This record gives sequence, C-alpha cells and structure tokens, in this order.
Amino acid sequence: MTSIAIYGAAGYTGRELLRILSGHPEVEVVHATSGTHAGQWLGVVFPELLRAYPMLRFAERDAQPPEGVEVAFLCLPHGESMAAVPPLLEAGVRVIDLSADYRLKEAALYPEWYGRDHAHPELLAEAVYGLPEWNGDEIGTEVRLLANPGCYPTATLLALLPAIEAGLIQPATVVVNACSGVSGAGVRPSETTHFVHANESLKAYKVGRHQHTPEIEQLCAEIAGSQVVLSFTPHLAPMNRGIAVTASAALAKRIDPEAAWELYLNRYLDAPFVHLLPAGQTPDTGRVRGSNQVHLQVVVDPRTNRLVMLSAIDNLVKGAAGQAVQNLNLMVGWEETTGLLAPPLVP
Amino acid sequence: MTSIAIYGAAGYTGRELLRILSGHPEVEVVHATSGTHAGQWLGVVFPELLRAYPMLRFAERDAQPPEGVEVAFLCLPHGESMAAVPPLLEAGVRVIDLSADYRLKEAALYPEWYGRDHAHPELLAEAVYGLPEWNGDEIGTEVRLLANPGCYPTATLLALLPAIEAGLIQPATVVVNACSGVSGAGVRPSETTHFVHANESLKAYKVGRHQHTPEIEQLCAEIAGSQVVLSFTPHLAPMNRGIAVTASAALAKRIDPEAAWELYLNRYLDAPFVHLLPAGQTPDTGRVRGSNQVHLQVVVDPRTNRLVMLSAIDNLVKGAAGQAVQNLNLMVGWEETTGLLAPPLVP
Amino acid sequence: MTSIAIYGAAGYTGRELLRILSGHPEVEVVHATSGTHAGQWLGVVFPELLRAYPMLRFAERDAQPPEGVEVAFLCLPHGESMAAVPPLLEAGVRVIDLSADYRLKEAALYPEWYGRDHAHPELLAEAVYGLPEWNGDEIGTEVRLLANPGCYPTATLLALLPAIEAGLIQPATVVVNACSGVSGAGVRPSETTHFVHANESLKAYKVGRHQHTPEIEQLCAEIAGSQVVLSFTPHLAPMNRGIAVTASAALAKRIDPEAAWELYLNRYLDAPFVHLLPAGQTPDTGRVRGSNQVHLQVVVDPRTNRLVMLSAIDNLVKGAAGQAVQNLNLMVGWEETTGLLAPPLVP
Amino acid sequence: MTSIAIYGAAGYTGRELLRILSGHPEVEVVHATSGTHAGQWLGVVFPELLRAYPMLRFAERDAQPPEGVEVAFLCLPHGESMAAVPPLLEAGVRVIDLSADYRLKEAALYPEWYGRDHAHPELLAEAVYGLPEWNGDEIGTEVRLLANPGCYPTATLLALLPAIEAGLIQPATVVVNACSGVSGAGVRPSETTHFVHANESLKAYKVGRHQHTPEIEQLCAEIAGSQVVLSFTPHLAPMNRGIAVTASAALAKRIDPEAAWELYLNRYLDAPFVHLLPAGQTPDTGRVRGSNQVHLQVVVDPRTNRLVMLSAIDNLVKGAAGQAVQNLNLMVGWEETTGLLAPPLVP
Repeated sequence: MTSIAIYGAAGYTGRELLRILSGHPEVEVVHATSGTHAGQWLGVVFPELLRAYPMLRFAERDAQPPEGVEVAFLCLPHGESMAAVPPLLEAGVRVIDLSADYRLKEAALYPEWYGRDHAHPELLAEAVYGLPEWNGDEIGTEVRLLANPGCYPTATLLALLPAIEAGLIQPATVVVNACSGVSGAGVRPSETTHFVHANESLKAYKVGRHQHTPEIEQLCAEIAGSQVVLSFTPHLAPMNRGIAVTASAALAKRIDPEAAWELYLNRYLDAPFVHLLPAGQTPDTGRVRGSNQVHLQVVVDPRTNRLVMLSAIDNLVKGAAGQAVQNLNLMVGWEETTGLLAPPLVP
Repeated sequence: MTSIAIYGAAGYTGRELLRILSGHPEVEVVHATSGTHAGQWLGVVFPELLRAYPMLRFAERDAQPPEGVEVAFLCLPHGESMAAVPPLLEAGVRVIDLSADYRLKEAALYPEWYGRDHAHPELLAEAVYGLPEWNGDEIGTEVRLLANPGCYPTATLLALLPAIEAGLIQPATVVVNACSGVSGAGVRPSETTHFVHANESLKAYKVGRHQHTPEIEQLCAEIAGSQVVLSFTPHLAPMNRGIAVTASAALAKRIDPEAAWELYLNRYLDAPFVHLLPAGQTPDTGRVRGSNQVHLQVVVDPRTNRLVMLSAIDNLVKGAAGQAVQNLNLMVGWEETTGLLAPPLVP
Repeated sequence: MTSIAIYGAAGYTGRELLRILSGHPEVEVVHATSGTHAGQWLGVVFPELLRAYPMLRFAERDAQPPEGVEVAFLCLPHGESMAAVPPLLEAGVRVIDLSADYRLKEAALYPEWYGRDHAHPELLAEAVYGLPEWNGDEIGTEVRLLANPGCYPTATLLALLPAIEAGLIQPATVVVNACSGVSGAGVRPSETTHFVHANESLKAYKVGRHQHTPEIEQLCAEIAGSQVVLSFTPHLAPMNRGIAVTASAALAKRIDPEAAWELYLNRYLDAPFVHLLPAGQTPDTGRVRGSNQVHLQVVVDPRTNRLVMLSAIDNLVKGAAGQAVQNLNLMVGWEETTGLLAPPLVP
Repeated sequence: MTSIAIYGAAGYTGRELLRILSGHPEVEVVHATSGTHAGQWLGVVFPELLRAYPMLRFAERDAQPPEGVEVAFLCLPHGESMAAVPPLLEAGVRVIDLSADYRLKEAALYPEWYGRDHAHPELLAEAVYGLPEWNGDEIGTEVRLLANPGCYPTATLLALLPAIEAGLIQPATVVVNACSGVSGAGVRPSETTHFVHANESLKAYKVGRHQHTPEIEQLCAEIAGSQVVLSFTPHLAPMNRGIAVTASAALAKRIDPEAAWELYLNRYLDAPFVHLLPAGQTPDTGRVRGSNQVHLQVVVDPRTNRLVMLSAIDNLVKGAAGQAVQNLNLMVGWEETTGLLAPPLVP
C-alpha cells in the first residue's frame, strides 16, 4: 500500500479524493489536513465516510506528513499551494497539486490572471501538466510535481484539441461557453452559493476574464504550434456537479459530419474515460455524475461553416479529484483506471 | 372592458396569459379553450386561478369565440395556428399568435425549419412581428394579425440588435449560446421533461438546427441591411423558467467598454421593460422570474477583440405571454405597460 | 397615500414587502433601512425593483422614520424588534412586527424558547396576534402594535384550528410535520443554506424544540379552551419558497369524510385567501408560490381513526409579508385583499 | 462468477442494479430484459454503462434466462412479478423480487391495497421478506424466493423497530411522515413527474392509503407481538433520490435521551450499513446518496412524552437495488457488504 497525504481535505475536492481513494486498492490515506476541522475525527465531520476512515483525524492545515508518505495531494486555495510545494519536494514527497499554482509555464501570467507574483517560478518548468489523454507520455514514475488541470480546462481541452491538432478549425475564431454546477464555486458560503440565490438561476460571470483562460490557451497553443487566443465565458447553473462545454469555431477546411465524428473517435480510441456519443446524442452533465467519464460530441454546421464541439464532465471527478487519481496511477505505474471505474450515478 | 379569447389555454403559455390578464384592468377573458380539459371548470383544473376566474369553463379546442370577442390569443402548437387564424380574421377577431406559424416572412423557410409547407402563405406579409422595442411603430390599432416572437429570439435579438444596428460587430461572426428552463419544452410529459432526467442535468440540443434560428436571422438581417447567418446552440437547464443568452461577435471597430455600455443604455432608454445592468453585474434568470423585464449587459473583451452581449428573460413572460400582452396594449392603444408592472418574484 | 417605513428591508421578508407594496394602490414606501446596504440605491442592490422604487435609498438600520410615516413594518431579527418598537409607538407610528418578539403573551416563554428575557413585557398584552382568519375582529383601526405570525404557525394553525374549534380531535394527540423552503432559513449565507448542501437534501431539524412551537400552542389553547401541547417537527426541503404542513390527530368523535370536508369549507367560506381543495387533491407548495393563498385539505383515516389536516402556503407571503399587508389593510380599514390578489406563479 | 439475470432492467431500479453489480466481484450480469429497449445495445441506451457492459443487449421483457443463470432479479411492475416468479423457480432459478408481489403474508391484503387478487398465494408462505438487519437469519442459502422490501418500509422499519422491540413506544400512537425523491415515482413520464410540476413543489399524496402501509405494519406486528395499525403519510419532494422518514410515537415508559440513543446504538452495532448519527445531528438524504447506508437518529421529547425516530436512505439503493444485492450476498453466502461499500456521493 502506498501512503497518501491530502492537504485541504475538507473542501469539495479533498472530500472527493477521500471518497474515490476509499475504493482504490493500492493506497492508504494516512494524513488529511483541514484548517477548519483540525483535531476532529473525520467520521464525525463527514458521517458518510466513517466506515471508510474509522481511525482518521484531521491534522492541522500545514502539518508535516508522517514518515512514509509517498504522495501528497494539495487541495489548497490558489496561492497557498505555491508555498506548500517546495518543503514537500525536499522531504522526498511527490506532489499532485490540484490548485492552479503550477499549471502555467509562463510566470508572468500569474500576476495578470491571479493577481499575485509566483513565489517559486523556478519550479514551473519541472511541473508536468496532467491531462493524460494529451500528455500521458510525460506523466511517469520520474515526475515529482504534477499540476492537475482545472475543471473548465479539462472539459474544454478534451473537446477542442482533436480539431486543433487536425487543423480542422481556425484557432482565432474559437468561442467557448461553459456551464458549471455550484460545487465549482467552493465550499465557502457566500451570497453566490446561497441556495435561494443559485436555485432557479443561470448567469454568466467573469466574462472574458476567468483565470482558467490562459491554462486553456497554453495547451491549445502547444498542440496548434502557434498562439491561440480564445473567448471564454463561464456560467453558473443550478446543479451540484457537472460542467457542460459548448465550443465553436470556424472550419479551416471542408469536412463531412461523419468524418469529423470519426476523427474524434479515432483520437480517443485508447482513452478509457472518454466516450464519444453516438451521432445525435449530446453530452449531459446528468450522465457523468460521480464518475471520471468524459462525454463528447462533435457537430458540423454547414450553414455557418462552423464546428461545434461539446463535452460534459463531473467537475469534481474528471475536473479535479478523479483526474488527480488518474495521474497518480500513471505516476506510480499502476493501471490508469485503477479505482476509477465506478459508473456514473444516474439518475 | 375588452373581451378576450385564449385558444390552448391549458399549456404553459396559455396558463401564463390567464395569470397575467387576471390583473389587467381593461380586459376580460371570456373564452378559454383546451383539448384536454374541455368542459371542466378552470378553477378546478387550476385551483390557483379559481378566485380570478370563478365562472369560466374550458371550451373545446376549436370552439368558435362568443359574440363580442375582440382579440384572440393563440397558444396552439406550431402548425395548428396556421389553420385557426383565417376563420378568426374573417369573423372580425384580431389575432395574437404565440406560435411560430406567422413569424417568418419567407414561406420557403417553413418546410426547411418546421418540416411542413405553410397553409396560408398569403397572410405572411400582413402579419406583424411583435418585438415592440424594435418595431413598436408597426404595432398599432390597424394590426389584424400579430406574430408574437419566440422565447429564444426575444432574448437573443434584444441582446444583439443594438450592436448590429450600430455596425459595431461583424454579423458573420455571431455565436449565440442560450440556456432555457424546462417550461420551454412544453407541458407534455416526456423523457426529456421527466424531473429525474432534467434535474442536475445541463445539455445542448438541436445543435445548429433549432427552428428559432431563421426568426433570429430575419430581424438581424432587417436591421443590418444584409443577410445574417449565425451559429445558435440552445441548452436545457434545470430550472422552471428563464432564458439566459450569451452572444458574442468580433468587433467591427474599436470601442471603449464604457461607450459600448452607453450605446446600449441610450438605445433602450425609452423601453420600459429593458434594464441595462450596472457595469460588472450580469443578467440572471433568477432576477426576472415572473416579470416582463429584460436584463442586459454588454462587455468588450480586448483580448479577443469581441463583444459579448448578455440577456436574461422569463421565457413564459417576456418570451411569450407577457410580450403578447405588451403587444395587445399597443394594438388597442393602451399604455404599453398596462398590467405588466409587477416586479419579478425574487427569490 | 399612506406613508410606510420598512426596517430591515434587505432580508427576504423585507424585500418581499417591497415587492408586494409596489402594487398596493394606497401606500407609498418612503423609508427602507438596511444595515448592510445603508446609503446604496435600492434599485442598484435589487435591480428588479428599480422601476418600482427609482428614488429610494437604503437608510441606516435604526434611522428614525421621516415625518409623516404612519405605519412601520419591522423585518428585524428576533431580539432587535423588542427594542425598536417602543420609540416608534411613542413617535405615533403604528407597528407591524414580523419578528417573534411580541407574539407570545406569556413573558416567561421568551427565555425558554428564545434564550433571552423580554425587554418590554408590558407591551405583550397590547400586541395583537394577526391571523385574520381567526381573530380578524381584533385587527382594527385602534391597533398600535401587531405581531405578525410566523410562517410555520400560519400554515399549521389554519390547518388545525377548525378541527380543534369543532372538538373534532383530541388535542393531546396532535403531531405536526412541516417542510419549509430554504428562504425560511434567512438571507445570511451558512453551511445550511449553501446550495450544494441544501440541494438534493431533505432533513428534519430542531426536533421538538423549534421556537415556533409555543406560538402554535398558544392559539390552539385559546380556541380549544384548554392547554395544548403538540409535537412539532420542521424539515428543510430543497426549494426556494413554500411550507407544506401535515398535521394529524386522533379523532374525538366519529365523522364522515364529507362532513369533515364541509366543516372546513364552511369555516373558511368568507376567508378570501383560504382555498379548500376538491376532495382527492392535496396542497402543493408549487401551487401557491408568490401569492397570499392558503391551500387546504382534510382527510379522515378510518383505519387509524385519525384526522389528517394538510396545508400549503408561500412562507414569504402568507407566512410573512403578504399576511403583514393583509393585517395592514385591516388596521387601516381598507378592503382585506387590497394589493394581494395576484395569483400564484405557476409553474 | 455467478450468472445473473435482471428482468425490467431499464427502469430506475434495474438500472441501479446494473450500476451496483458492475462493481460486484463475484457476479456477471448475462441477461437484462426491457420491453421498451429489447434488441438494443445496453451501452447505446445507457451510455454511462457502455464500458461496464460492452457486449450486453436488452432481451425481450419475458425472455427465458440463458442456461446457467442462478439468480434473477425482478424489477417488474407490481402485478407482473406475480406471474413471472413460478416459471423461474421451476427452472431452478432463485428469485429476488423487487416488486411488492410477494411481500405480504396475507393474501387477502392484495385486493385491499393493490386492487387485485394474488395469482399465486401458495408461494406467499415460502417467500422470505429481506430486511437483513431484522431477519438476516432467515436469508440463507436455502432461500428460493426473496421479497425485497419497499423503499418507504425499509426507511420506516429501520427507524421504528428498535423502539417497538424494546417496548419503548405505544404502537397504537405511531405516526409516520416520509418524503421521497421523484425517482420513487418511476421512470414513466407523467404530469406528476414533469420537472416543472415537481420542481419547487412539496406535497402529500395517498394520505392514509399508500400501498406500503400493510408491509410496514406486518413486520411491526411481528416484532411487537401484536397488531399494529399506524398512520402513514408519504410526500413527494423535489430531488432525484432519497427518503427521509420522521416517525413519532407516545412513549410507553420513561427513558433518558442518552439511554434511547444507546438502545439504538446497541441494536445496530453489527449492522454494517446502519449509522446512528451523533446526538444533535439529523439524517439527511443528501448524505446517503448513491450508497447503501442508512442514517438514523432518535430524540426523546419530554414536553410531549413522545419518541421521534428519524431515518434517511437512498430509495434506489438501500430502498431497492442495494438491499437486493445485500440479500443476494446473504443468499449465496458471500460477505454481506460485497460490492456495496462505496461511500455516498456527497455533494
């Protein structure tokens, strides 16, 4: 058994890691920290996890991991992870960071999009961005620091990249609209997350300035081989989980609908979590809930000469904790799907 | 008091007309038809309307209006209205048609988008498209047949048209994403509208082929003075009411964010139901529920050189029954806002 | 026009008063206070109310009412109203208190149920409990201080009292279960009201110790003519508005189902907001939303020899702001239904 | 591997069995029938299950099970199971029936509560009612026909029985209120299950006459040793899954709150799925979603001298498919928790 630590284990992402890892046959969570619940029994704070973790108590937010911990998941707020990573690496602990702190290669983007300078820019080059369907080759046993992608980037990139890679679309015309469930706004109560405010409400926010934008553009540019600037508008939708992405771009060349569909089919033939839906079906957040699955569809619109690329994921699983475990599997050398095959909870 | 008939009064749109007209000081609903509930007391089928209509019974779906009816609202399925209009006009009854049957000027579009030929193409030229904020001048006491706009077109056009009119955007680059509440799918039970299916679910549908598309393009073209072909993707969101539109287009010229905002402010200064939000706020379906209000916002994105235009309406009110009453007011010569000033139900 | 002040106008109850009073033909709201929003324009904080109150700014929470105010509504937290009432009365302003601070006649109940002594017990005898269907005779032009009932008590008492009055049930066997929408938990964000926590969640809370219990028992005892102690369990349900009450008690005598139904029908024949549903239908929170209506049903269960009494109201309307306006109408001498006849928003 | 058949596999219960059994290490589902989807690939109808069942096609509703099937789950509508059971038993297939058709011991109760005579009353005595926490001893390798409890009975009985067994409450005073998610109403679209109707709606239904009542009373009577007649009122709540039960009864003797809590604790000490919450917490449907867990609480109300017993389950798991698998485990002799330990999906 591999010993695991989770920092920030009481937020939605950390809690989801606890849920998923409870069914992973190769790991044992031995350390879970929480600023709010330090000292309390995990099974009292989260009764649904009592049977899975009967003997675990929350440690202080920044408590050193016990001897023997091999991998630490960081579910800390953006900014806090920056400082937490170096001491862990020095102690010989490998890190999977679920924050945005090591996702961008260019240090200058941090003050621009996150409002603060990066404290450890020297580590940015080493950090591997962990989207296994696109750079699984880089995610191996030698990786010390893995930057786990954001929820919007995961759903958007999986929809966009096959078309970009194939030169099918004009990158300068990409428009991305995404709708997220409220868990994406985090566990902290606020006016935005108040039930009465969020229920029966759908609205755009951070129009043109969401901090996940450069992360999306970075990998698009890498695949396209040239800079990509895209229009990204996130929305908050009245549901607990799920992200649905609708991306659209002008076609760069003529293509039959069937050929576009087959292009996507072939690109993801070996991706165990990606499921291209039969033509005519559209991805639905309600069909991926609680699982690491990605549902995709691609539609050629001959009237506008555009390609419409659709995806749905569970923001807390493939958009966060599930993908982190997928990366863990690859980093340790286990089967990529270990502990991640439970089907979605439908309905 | 003006005597009113409602055909198809038991669907969501007809029921909403009953609700709104119960507070209208100048009208009396004397005739309400329903195929399903013919012969039943309205107050037994809809207990919440018993006090408002204690003496009304549903008539047969195609029952002739009683003597004295001046205006008939048609809330019939697309296709049925076609046939119902001519006899009413011949009987001297003015018609407000909430179906799509008389919205498109070009008869050839009906088989293409609605799958059937138009039975009365000779009436298409006479029918006035009733979006008062844009063609209020045409909606007067001489109108016999008014085609009430669809829900998606209303929300989309109010967001797009000021920018198109001002030549601010390139019409060929317009991408529209819209999310609708489930009442937009109609009262008939189906797998799509099953609670367990729709709840916690967000998905695109009819990608590139929604029948409201030509209706949007028709008025855009009229204002632009040239053909407009746009990409429109509707989505179903887990809420009862509301449409949120996010439209985006490449800018045709440079403009400051403030100037774009002021352009919209000035365009709608005299529109009593349109409310441009303070900069920084975004339209929210939860803030217009049950009212005829339209909330708008416009954002310049300097990174992508695009304009993002946002709107929110209640699909059953400004997107259907409320706008129909607004048109009624203009057709009879009453104050445009009569019976329509109740604020939204928040929360 | 009668000049009105609202204290605590930015909470759900105060905001609902603003919404309802905007359609009341006899009043003008000239003073609205808010600790959080003092100094801000009402139409900026609540865009949906801009047209209704274009010139109103929030005053400080405890700002004195301007000259000429005749009635003040207090939507302050329990405890704060206690202190706010006496100065207003002294200034000649009549008070409708929507808090619990003047509902209980017995001062000793306050420390027991609300955890604090009453600061002005001398006013408890004067305060009139305002449930018009049961003590409308006491709510007249001479009332200075009206205690507006709680949401649970309103729904519960309207269901229970006809049976108690008629001696139909054994008071010692009454069991009340109630489900409330989340707006009942107030506007302040908390773990309980977080969307992700409240959505897809139904749970009991404050079992046997909800502070509305003595208020229910007080009026039951008055009508019964003897002490009533009942079991009350509230639940939180995933919806914005609405309370559904299911009360049950052992029958004190044999009665036919039809006779029980007629007893309720006759008792509320003159109550303009109470609607006894046809036999076989059950009250549904979704059918009273946004209105002052009360839906009732009564069922005789011959197997258990119990009577089941059911009610549904909108907790913010008949359970708070709407009933307060109903009481205002009676206190000033207007028609009881003035400004309150808008039908529910269905769906 | 044990070969399994599922009859009626496309309803909510059958689909949930497919989900749960996909993670069960000892079984293989080789036969899944559906009247609606016969002949279609399971992974096309339910894309989320494609990876789990890549080679399974729906068979005709009444298709004979293939050679080698050892156990059949029946997820057929009440009434259809009656006829399906005898031929399966004759073919040597053991049956777990998730319908109500073999739950009641007394044949005379079927026409009274289900509106039809029982077609095979001779099998009622043999059928074992499968609530493992209460009659696990009877659920062994010799059982041929197991009647899986209903969702309401499971939640209600687990809450009530410890108090009844201990003689703590007066059985004649039991009042049960229960709220169920909409999946309990089945997969068939109807007005009741329409999103727009069920959302924002809470209502009682079948007051005093729900068909699960005699099933609850039957086991209560067995444990009490005398007849029990109780008042049961179900409600429909706006959520996909979950049942919350609030049961209340007059105490038969004095007991401290702590002693009542310990009584429940001790009664379920060995029940791996039952979790008595710490005092002060109440069961919440949102904390058991997707799992076989049961959350319980028990409260002594000294004012009314009543005991309030609370439970929450997932109606599709512990209330149906999960409990069926728990029974399967016991019938074959595997560990009771095999395939059922995944924690709830929170949030």
